[in-house]
Amino acid sequence: MKTLHERARDLFAELQSQICDALQGLEGQVAFREDRWAHRVGGGGVTRVLTDGRVFERAGVSLADVQGVLTERLAARLAVTPRPFSATGLSLVIHPLSPMVPTAHLNLRHIRLTGSGAPGERAEWFGGGADLTPYYLREEDARHFHATWRDVCNRHDPGYYPRFKKSCDEYFRIEHRDEARGVGGIFFDNLADDLEAVFRFVEDVGRHFAAAYLPIVERRMHESWWERERCWQLVRRGRYVEFNLVYDRGTLFALETGGRVESVLMSLPPLVRWRHDPPPAPGSAEAALIEVLRVPREWA
Amino acid sequence: MKTLHERARDLFAELQSQICDALQGLEGQVAFREDRWAHRVGGGGVTRVLTDGRVFERAGVSLADVQGVLTERLAARLAVTPRPFSATGLSLVIHPLSPMVPTAHLNLRHIRLTGSGAPGERAEWFGGGADLTPYYLREEDARHFHATWRDVCNRHDPGYYPRFKKSCDEYFRIEHRDEARGVGGIFFDNLADDLEAVFRFVEDVGRHFAAAYLPIVERRMHESWWERERCWQLVRRGRYVEFNLVYDRGTLFALETGGRVESVLMSLPPLVRWRHDPPPAPGSAEAALIEVLRVPREWA
Repeated sequence: MKTLHERARDLFAELQSQICDALQGLEGQVAFREDRWAHRVGGGGVTRVLTDGRVFERAGVSLADVQGVLTERLAARLAVTPRPFSATGLSLVIHPLSPMVPTAHLNLRHIRLTGSGAPGERAEWFGGGADLTPYYLREEDARHFHATWRDVCNRHDPGYYPRFKKSCDEYFRIEHRDEARGVGGIFFDNLADDLEAVFRFVEDVGRHFAAAYLPIVERRMHESWWERERCWQLVRRGRYVEFNLVYDRGTLFALETGGRVESVLMSLPPLVRWRHDPPPAPGSAEAALIEVLRVPREWA
Repeated sequence: MKTLHERARDLFAELQSQICDALQGLEGQVAFREDRWAHRVGGGGVTRVLTDGRVFERAGVSLADVQGVLTERLAARLAVTPRPFSATGLSLVIHPLSPMVPTAHLNLRHIRLTGSGAPGERAEWFGGGADLTPYYLREEDARHFHATWRDVCNRHDPGYYPRFKKSCDEYFRIEHRDEARGVGGIFFDNLADDLEAVFRFVEDVGRHFAAAYLPIVERRMHESWWERERCWQLVRRGRYVEFNLVYDRGTLFALETGGRVESVLMSLPPLVRWRHDPPPAPGSAEAALIEVLRVPREWA
């Protein structure tokens, strides 16, 4: 009989190959390169990366199953005692070449604490989420992405979507810019109540990533763009880096617990520009994006 | 009679224009653009940026004189009580276009706490430093840079250079890469003992930045380079970003206390690449750099 941890790991491995196949189908010739690695402390993972494609400038889909010990700082942040942990997760970030195609991110994870904790302390839980980062706002795309997650959530708990949509807006906030990273999606953490039900929910999220994102890629990948749009995309990618390195708990957790740097930072965009421009002209497509990043909207 | 804070501010303003003039002299046609800004909480600054020059892809020299209140987290990090503060500083980062010319950084700051603190708590101090980040190691350059600072330090205190060189190596460490950011220089903080003497030292550091760095620029700016060297530079610039956003206390201090984002993040390179390459071939110029970043050397 498999443990929940083992079942989560098997599910994530299956999702990794399904999602890579689906991305590969859109990409065509350039293929994923697989990279197996050992964790500095214990366990390891398989990172699959597609680079310099026709559609995807970089798509990284990483599977990890690692062990370690929580540092004091991490334990404090998680509100648990510093204990050994096992973590298994699927993490993907897709950076398309075209500025007209949004970046997408999915993460699913199961964390289990071992050794003994304080009385009543949670010992295992799931977390995860999926969010979309457009460079040019297409309301239709944001609505499709959110509607997919709303429908997935509603099959499990009517309270999930409103709660997880809000958590996503709150989590992916670049405080110092007073902007969201993108148009959001869903974000959940510490789901520990009915673990079997949560497992089914996490599975459902993973199985719907392709349906949430790929139709958007197909719709936008043939749209034309030029230097102006590319430059804007590179500057906006800088915001992605700022979020991931300054705020993202997952990134900092992985760097602090001895995660493999290349796999952890696979989330960073392949090419990025920082420049100090005046804000986009009112009424421009660029200004329309900023507006929706300042004040998150309801999309589904 | 001016306070030390006012004298520091005046000094930093004078250094800002001297250093900009010196850089301008090397650059030629493209000029610094000046940008005056107000701090979100109190005070403000003047940022001078030169962009897309023949020699400097971006050179930013920023003067700030700001007020605010330390957050609990910052106060804890500084080991003082959460109190109002005034900070004045000069901060510059120079990203040359050519991969053969190193990046340089200088920071000088005076912090003063107001209101009442715990008994014996320090109320004002100086900090700062200068460090060099080459993309290709030229030992002659590292020796010149360090010898300049050693001589400056020795005029004030024979203990300074060894101490500040070591602090620099420790501070500019990218833990998750197990690499230093560059070949170091000097780094000092909490100098509060004989404030008049410290002021003279800080002044001396500021007045020698041009002598420490510009001869290196002049020596290397005409060396030829091609796609391979440029690509390596862009990847190494990613490490600069990782350091500044994950570890740099100055950056995080400024973002947390409401600093002006564009001026704080002026330190980030204009164009950056992240890619997942195999380590450089043994014996290559790239491998020689990594070696010296892994194990800091004595240069002076």
